[in-house]
Amino acid sequence: MYADTPKPPYYAVIFTSVKSPEQQGYAEMADRMWQLAHQQPGFLGAESASAQLGITVSYWQDLASIQRWKANAEHLQAQKQGKEQWYSAFKLRIAKVERDYQFTRL
Amino acid sequence: MYADTPKPPYYAVIFTSVKSPEQQGYAEMADRMWQLAHQQPGFLGAESASAQLGITVSYWQDLASIQRWKANAEHLQAQKQGKEQWYSAFKLRIAKVERDYQFTRL
Repeated sequence: MYADTPKPPYYAVIFTSVKSPEQQGYAEMADRMWQLAHQQPGFLGAESASAQLGITVSYWQDLASIQRWKANAEHLQAQKQGKEQWYSAFKLRIAKVERDYQFTRL
Repeated sequence: MYADTPKPPYYAVIFTSVKSPEQQGYAEMADRMWQLAHQQPGFLGAESASAQLGITVSYWQDLASIQRWKANAEHLQAQKQGKEQWYSAFKLRIAKVERDYQFTRL
């Protein structure tokens, strides 16, 4: 299901990645980072899907929570390994969610 | 590859969906909307991936371009059919991209 985020405004980190052929250890690290992100202060939810591209969007209360998560020691190690091994390219965008709209079938 | 967007600021529309079991006609319509969006004024790029969730992020020059795309006649018909048939739930978030960062392996 989509992330159950509160009323805007809040922040989204849109991480779009292209994987390299070297995927050893990736799945375990991705699971660990998913769990760890959920424990961070200011974390509001996340959504992930992958095909040729991987897209993960995480939602945060404010820029300070994003900065803290970026600087998390275990996450820094994952970022390093991501650049050295798992990703051939990625783009990360930080965006302020201003409005939202949802639909659920009765 | 990730969308080759210009320097921020610009807007992102994050569309996260859960599909219903009724998928007849979906793939053709999704292809058509993908093409049509690329022809809209203010359109900057899009990225899409799907697993259990579908995530499509499209990027736009400003809120006015998003409003025009939302009101496009052919797109309105697709939105209607999406709610009636293809999606069991979705969430759409409109966010202002404030900064970005990219990595490409040498």
